[in-house]
Amino acid sequence: MSPKITVELLRQLRQVMKSSKYITEPIQAYIIPSGDAHQSEYIAPCDCRREFVCGFNGSAGTAIVTEQHAAMWTDGRYFLQASQQMDNNWTLMKMGLKETPSQEDWLISVLPENSKVGVDPWIIAADQWKAMAKALSGAGHSLVAVQDNLIDAVWEDRPVRPSTQLSALGLKYTGLSWQDKIRQLRGKMAERKISWFVVTALDEIAWLFNLRGSDIEYNPVFFAYAIIGVNSIRLFLDEKRVVDPVVREHLELDSASKPELKVQCLPYESIYTELQAVSSALGPKEKVWISDKASCALTQAIPKIHRSPIPYTPLCLAKAVKNPTEIQGMRMAHIKDAVALCELFAWLEKEIPKGTVTEISAADKAEELRSQQKDFVGLSFPTISSVGPNGAIIHYRPLPETNRTLSLNEVYLIDSGAQYMDGTTDVTRTVHFGTPSDYEKECFTYVLKGHIAVSAAVFPNGTKGHLLDSFARAALWDSGLDYLHGTGHGVGCFLNVHEGPCGISYKTFADEPLEAGMILSDEPGYYEDGSFGIRLENVVLVVPTKPKYNYRNRGSLTFEPLTLVPIQQKMINAELLTQKERDWLNHYHRKCRETIGAELERQGRKEALDWLIQETQPIV
Amino acid sequence: MSPKITVELLRQLRQVMKSSKYITEPIQAYIIPSGDAHQSEYIAPCDCRREFVCGFNGSAGTAIVTEQHAAMWTDGRYFLQASQQMDNNWTLMKMGLKETPSQEDWLISVLPENSKVGVDPWIIAADQWKAMAKALSGAGHSLVAVQDNLIDAVWEDRPVRPSTQLSALGLKYTGLSWQDKIRQLRGKMAERKISWFVVTALDEIAWLFNLRGSDIEYNPVFFAYAIIGVNSIRLFLDEKRVVDPVVREHLELDSASKPELKVQCLPYESIYTELQAVSSALGPKEKVWISDKASCALTQAIPKIHRSPIPYTPLCLAKAVKNPTEIQGMRMAHIKDAVALCELFAWLEKEIPKGTVTEISAADKAEELRSQQKDFVGLSFPTISSVGPNGAIIHYRPLPETNRTLSLNEVYLIDSGAQYMDGTTDVTRTVHFGTPSDYEKECFTYVLKGHIAVSAAVFPNGTKGHLLDSFARAALWDSGLDYLHGTGHGVGCFLNVHEGPCGISYKTFADEPLEAGMILSDEPGYYEDGSFGIRLENVVLVVPTKPKYNYRNRGSLTFEPLTLVPIQQKMINAELLTQKERDWLNHYHRKCRETIGAELERQGRKEALDWLIQETQPIV
Repeated sequence: MSPKITVELLRQLRQVMKSSKYITEPIQAYIIPSGDAHQSEYIAPCDCRREFVCGFNGSAGTAIVTEQHAAMWTDGRYFLQASQQMDNNWTLMKMGLKETPSQEDWLISVLPENSKVGVDPWIIAADQWKAMAKALSGAGHSLVAVQDNLIDAVWEDRPVRPSTQLSALGLKYTGLSWQDKIRQLRGKMAERKISWFVVTALDEIAWLFNLRGSDIEYNPVFFAYAIIGVNSIRLFLDEKRVVDPVVREHLELDSASKPELKVQCLPYESIYTELQAVSSALGPKEKVWISDKASCALTQAIPKIHRSPIPYTPLCLAKAVKNPTEIQGMRMAHIKDAVALCELFAWLEKEIPKGTVTEISAADKAEELRSQQKDFVGLSFPTISSVGPNGAIIHYRPLPETNRTLSLNEVYLIDSGAQYMDGTTDVTRTVHFGTPSDYEKECFTYVLKGHIAVSAAVFPNGTKGHLLDSFARAALWDSGLDYLHGTGHGVGCFLNVHEGPCGISYKTFADEPLEAGMILSDEPGYYEDGSFGIRLENVVLVVPTKPKYNYRNRGSLTFEPLTLVPIQQKMINAELLTQKERDWLNHYHRKCRETIGAELERQGRKEALDWLIQETQPIV
Repeated sequence: MSPKITVELLRQLRQVMKSSKYITEPIQAYIIPSGDAHQSEYIAPCDCRREFVCGFNGSAGTAIVTEQHAAMWTDGRYFLQASQQMDNNWTLMKMGLKETPSQEDWLISVLPENSKVGVDPWIIAADQWKAMAKALSGAGHSLVAVQDNLIDAVWEDRPVRPSTQLSALGLKYTGLSWQDKIRQLRGKMAERKISWFVVTALDEIAWLFNLRGSDIEYNPVFFAYAIIGVNSIRLFLDEKRVVDPVVREHLELDSASKPELKVQCLPYESIYTELQAVSSALGPKEKVWISDKASCALTQAIPKIHRSPIPYTPLCLAKAVKNPTEIQGMRMAHIKDAVALCELFAWLEKEIPKGTVTEISAADKAEELRSQQKDFVGLSFPTISSVGPNGAIIHYRPLPETNRTLSLNEVYLIDSGAQYMDGTTDVTRTVHFGTPSDYEKECFTYVLKGHIAVSAAVFPNGTKGHLLDSFARAALWDSGLDYLHGTGHGVGCFLNVHEGPCGISYKTFADEPLEAGMILSDEPGYYEDGSFGIRLENVVLVVPTKPKYNYRNRGSLTFEPLTLVPIQQKMINAELLTQKERDWLNHYHRKCRETIGAELERQGRKEALDWLIQETQPIV
């Protein structure tokens, strides 16, 4: 992987930062966040401005360019990757390490007095703007909104914004009509005396209207905004999209049953002026909900006295708790996904000795096998297929220049998932096709112990996910090891593979309490730089459980794995497991064998079935 | 325990809330926090306004009186106690339960439109003021500073503010002169370009100047403020206190070696005007540090552009990491404390069958035995001595009307501690003098497992204490049990028994990372309302440890128990312990026997030594 050469680009950007053509007054620093106007994690090519400017293409990172410096902040998943993708004009800021300054502190340390720091108000979240503005003004600087995006100004050949075909999901997949979702939302608004709700997150809009698109790779969403009132529904999107009769019928555009369920479609770009118009017609006590992660630009379109910013919108909360139809869909999607992975591993076992399988061809094979399953739509994120030292690059993605051959001598880590019409999957397995070293087995076993500790945890209703994070680390910590990423994220149902408001991480405290019906990943890991990477990930469903007692009638919860793919026993040092952990593993493998075995049988996939049987023998 | 009758008192308070004698405009609600002007947790009798108004005398709680309602918020430790101490004019607001509204939400739900909510700006912290003011103004109300305290207005016979004799601590106890502490503080101020630091917390002032007082029961502190400049030191306190030649010499009041170490003593009450004067003389870029937990009144004496509020002051951080002299002192204090407790338990075992020992007499005996130890100063908090159902009242304190007799039939919980010149102790043991039930043993064993899980935890440098909280609960959660309080708090060295900035709790995320030299409590529990209470508490020292590996050279930490008092084996169901837990317990008891045994021998306390030997047999 060779770094992007950015000398000329930075020169141009610094010129634009002083040019009256784009800005009223010169700025001394320009912040380039990684998000789009919807604060999406995965973004369309036209929005990949941070990647364009510095070369680093991981999913999280913020670049800042001053007259003298260029620095890019990212987290532990990406330290290696970022250091390989950026040239030496850039300083890598390793977030989470004690010695790494925050963006604010760094700016304050390098800027001349009374500096102006610019940022595009559409791609910075309101809460981030606020924190940054406060820190800068405390040090005598100011944060200014630059309306024209300065990266776009120097980006020739910038791709256009996609506008893909929309598809409507019926009750069979969603379990709840969009009309009922609107009714429930209005119920929440009435409880809190809220007149309007501005929906800015793309997955919330897709979920609310039971529509899917493919504007952003891996995420079945489409560019849109919505404003929901007590009696009105405005949907902002490229109007060409609602010419399709299927979409028109789904949204009842020509036949709304009730006036309060009539959807008014407006151009995507008109959201700002429409929101201003709505805001200016508000009564003195009326309030508008908007996510505090919405863009600064849109947030400020609502006068402060009417603005009611919320950390998690009612849609985000409702979407996180899957209904029975969605849960059933997720189960089915995970069964199909496991079928594809069993086939993949059976195939790999046969092919690897020939020396012809590479990280890329293995990833392609996985995709091919998944695509044979019913209702397959696409992948849910770029497959991480990594051998040996590449495995230590936490969010590695194989490229021709980094592509390694799978062999009998190195650990292989594959983190992959798919979008099916009935659900989204995300699974990581780490395997060895020869004989793993004692150290690799030891580390793998600690990771497995952490995975089980979370998966088997029993905890009271109302517990927040971050309180479970240390369970995943205890075995690693005991031996002086750790991993620099969170343990779990919410997973959407045929939606984004990462979603809020729940998660399992030492970094987040604003997560919402876990509830039965939420779906998360459980994915501890261990990464030995330059040598190997280990991660073990299942998607798990939060389910009620009844332990021996029930303190204050609070009720208890635990997790049920939806992912049913064998965990390689060759990688386990069984002596390090407790009896309880061995029981968990045997029970898990029995379930894999029963559920996936039946489906493999049904699909007539004999080789994969043999492999499954062999891999799910109980350990003693 | 009979509740305080508050009908007349509330009538008077509501009258005063409308009286132009005290306030310019009538207020519709009045907030009565539990703190004093220094936001102390324990307070002097003259500051017990919340207790005076509602009757509840626990350490944490906030009362709010409106024209129609009176409500009091407290946490899980105090639900039972508060419900017993308050009459039915008061609504108990159980913090931590999902259905309990926040103070803000409750006010908004009960107040008429455009209400004014009053509070004494000296006893509300600046950060709390800010949050409350924001919430109220968002709902059309306003928070107003009422300069005359309205409780004082209706409180005949209010006690006067104490002004006890000060004592000076030499290097033998402190390990660092106050002059060196000032130098280190100024070093931190220089790093951050801070001109002044306003010290408002009483324990920080006592620690900084190596002085102790006894203005507040159990806390060896004295009422004072300080303003530390780059070249000046102003100490605000009752000037009669510095007539004492020992204090004068300690502070070098008549012989300052260097001008920048000259302490200027000023009247306690003059802090506000002095701080205003300091603030008005500031250059345009000068900054003043003040804790964000300082009073609203004092915080606002500093113009906003000069104010630099900090969550934890450099003194709070420095004080938390004990130096070798302090650690040695804490070790000695805990050895002496264990001697007293071994004697107590030996005595109880002999006396209880006679039926003459009560909660109060047992607590008195514990105090008497502690007072025989060298450098004993007093208790560090009111002894919780509780039998059977009283044990379920988490912060119970025996009173004549609740006093139960210790017997062979009920669980006995004693949580107690002392102030010695060399250190502060805090220890809880739960014991049974007859035969505990299987259920009591089961619960005790879960609590013990939690205690060990924290105490034996290995974790990377930089880990925050709240990440360890769930370790203490896992065994209880597994069986559907829990406890509604945090797991640990920082402990001062001959200072407050509760101190920041570290702790182990699911409730706090703003705790500072754990560092070697910090001292905390480890005290999980289980409480069966109406039946019994279990808590197991050691004070533990954060120490470096060297596990097998050292990921990214971060280094690892663990805890070393300073408390060395046997854990009653009769209460343990050993079958529920893992081998690792049994090893921990045996190792702990061996250490108790060696260290405390030697001291009991030296002090010639034969019966207690016999008891210790009997209680520290290894389990198999």
